[in-house]
Amino acid sequence: MPVRIGVVGGGQLARMMIAPAVELGIELQVLAEDDGMSASLAAAAVGDYRDAATVLAFAEGVDVITFDHEHVPQNVLADLVEAGVAVHPGPAALGVAQDKLVMRARLQELGMPQPDWAAVSNRVELQEFLDEHGGRAVVKTPRGGYDGKGVRVVSAATEADDWFAALAEDARGGSLLVEELVDFSRELAQQVARRPSGEMAVYPVVETVQREGVCAEVVAPAPHAGLRLQEVAGQIGVAIAEGLGVTGMLAVELFETTDERLLVNELAMRPHNSGHWSQDGAVTSQFEQHLRAVADLPLGDTTPRERWTVMINILGGPREGTLDERFVGAMAEHPAAKIHTYGKAPRPGRKVGHVNVAGDDLDDAVYQARSAAAAFLD
Amino acid sequence: MPVRIGVVGGGQLARMMIAPAVELGIELQVLAEDDGMSASLAAAAVGDYRDAATVLAFAEGVDVITFDHEHVPQNVLADLVEAGVAVHPGPAALGVAQDKLVMRARLQELGMPQPDWAAVSNRVELQEFLDEHGGRAVVKTPRGGYDGKGVRVVSAATEADDWFAALAEDARGGSLLVEELVDFSRELAQQVARRPSGEMAVYPVVETVQREGVCAEVVAPAPHAGLRLQEVAGQIGVAIAEGLGVTGMLAVELFETTDERLLVNELAMRPHNSGHWSQDGAVTSQFEQHLRAVADLPLGDTTPRERWTVMINILGGPREGTLDERFVGAMAEHPAAKIHTYGKAPRPGRKVGHVNVAGDDLDDAVYQARSAAAAFLD
Repeated sequence: MPVRIGVVGGGQLARMMIAPAVELGIELQVLAEDDGMSASLAAAAVGDYRDAATVLAFAEGVDVITFDHEHVPQNVLADLVEAGVAVHPGPAALGVAQDKLVMRARLQELGMPQPDWAAVSNRVELQEFLDEHGGRAVVKTPRGGYDGKGVRVVSAATEADDWFAALAEDARGGSLLVEELVDFSRELAQQVARRPSGEMAVYPVVETVQREGVCAEVVAPAPHAGLRLQEVAGQIGVAIAEGLGVTGMLAVELFETTDERLLVNELAMRPHNSGHWSQDGAVTSQFEQHLRAVADLPLGDTTPRERWTVMINILGGPREGTLDERFVGAMAEHPAAKIHTYGKAPRPGRKVGHVNVAGDDLDDAVYQARSAAAAFLD
Repeated sequence: MPVRIGVVGGGQLARMMIAPAVELGIELQVLAEDDGMSASLAAAAVGDYRDAATVLAFAEGVDVITFDHEHVPQNVLADLVEAGVAVHPGPAALGVAQDKLVMRARLQELGMPQPDWAAVSNRVELQEFLDEHGGRAVVKTPRGGYDGKGVRVVSAATEADDWFAALAEDARGGSLLVEELVDFSRELAQQVARRPSGEMAVYPVVETVQREGVCAEVVAPAPHAGLRLQEVAGQIGVAIAEGLGVTGMLAVELFETTDERLLVNELAMRPHNSGHWSQDGAVTSQFEQHLRAVADLPLGDTTPRERWTVMINILGGPREGTLDERFVGAMAEHPAAKIHTYGKAPRPGRKVGHVNVAGDDLDDAVYQARSAAAAFLD
């Protein structure tokens, strides 16, 4: 049994692996970007994840390497594999998550339902796509975007001029991704876990609510989701995890269209904001499951513990005062709210924690969770 | 909000405070007895808890001191208080937990129901108690006993001769505690949490099954416990916590007699084996609650998450082989079992972890939990 798991990246996802690691008896070692990161309690080293020598040295003390994010360069991943290090998810799978154009092409090969898309390298090609799709579309930079960054809705090809100009200056060249603007009724997320040995575990599909491109709320399981929808979502998750050879947790962000189809929006090959509910709402949390999966240990039960679990992100607010004072107020007013903090200084719009509330009554759980999260901003 | 909690003692109770501390954003610092203790991930110092200078130096870096065990000497506790350190539970309360004769006298003052008892300093006094109680009784050393150690059922006064001899050699002198042998139908445990500001939270009373003096199984809530029994147990817990000024978690071990009375057996002023079920079975685990209570933060909801939760201790078995191999087998066969490890080398009879299983069907939960725990011994 591999008992030493190395996590590259010291953010909140690595932090939230600490609790299940302690309980499972897994030694977690984190390569943090800096001192004082979210996962600093488990930080075994501080260094640059883009530097192969740094990551190789870190890997010497562990049995398997996994990640807090998807930004480790392919050359570093290749060096790890060449050195005989177990890397989960592996470079091939991560490569798909690292480039949205590669992702769209691979999902197309796998026959997955997705929005119309194209690679466009100039204004003319973008205008052509716009003309074919009602004059509006979503333009994305293939690399480096997150939480709404690198995503832009455009109605004229000139609106992407700055990104085309940046591409022209980039020695790697390349294209932008343009996608049809999907007429969706809501967003869903499907998580699955997959071990190197192939065993998989499927979580219930959840509903996610985004605000300004950032995940704001999650309801698990997704309300008004019929058996057919649940099955199709699960099948998409399984097909992508197997098709891309994902190991560890995979999150598939989905659009549910107004004509009741599911289309794949984004992929994440790690624990994901849409799965934070599972810490207090599922028999096995996504963080425990990720550790089990990357260590090739038997996967845990994904059954919800209660009828509904609602997750609300806590965003650092615009007001003065420490987070601590608001924290005490939220605890006093909401004794059933499970508060998870990331150890980050609050800044406007920054995710600094989240709240989970579980219960039989969805309206009440939503109210309690929103109210507890709002107490941090009062 | 006090965000730095110092725990004296690096055993499994301190270890199990790590997970909720990370989620709550509390900085946990442990004074461990040695390197490689259960709670070593959070070990800020290694030293002797009986040495006042060591403990005082450790306390300088934290906002409040609490404990993994009840063995810190009163002179060390007094030095902490004199230095202005917040200590929870405080010396007066801990003094009651540290000496079973003091405990019996204080519970008597509080009017708590308990077995007949006496302080006996020689064979004659013990024989007198035996004669008055049907010829059999339980003799206990007032200090230092745990998990059945320092407890002996005797039917002749001579059976305690060695303990009397040891007392005679001890400069502090003193007496043994003798208690009537209670005719109980089962053992229960009642946990309550109390903040310095007085707020309290009451857990459901649970049934505990001891084997060879060691807690083996817990069923939460206690089956076949009527409302009256639940109320009386809760009232006993509240009265003792208030009467003794306990801060943090208090566990009251109870006998339920064949004539349906509740009698206080033992007290523990810390998270307790009888409350491990709450990690996976209650909205707020006893470890999170203890941190909230000693930091004087608002207490969490104690409601059970599911109908039944069963806790089974994993005892290091007599067989060869590493715990790791058995671990994988238990995980594979019981995906819904929550396994908690203490990071201890297995030795026969040593508590090295526990398993929690929650569900609607008690028989099934007991079967799953016993089966998962047994897999470690196969």
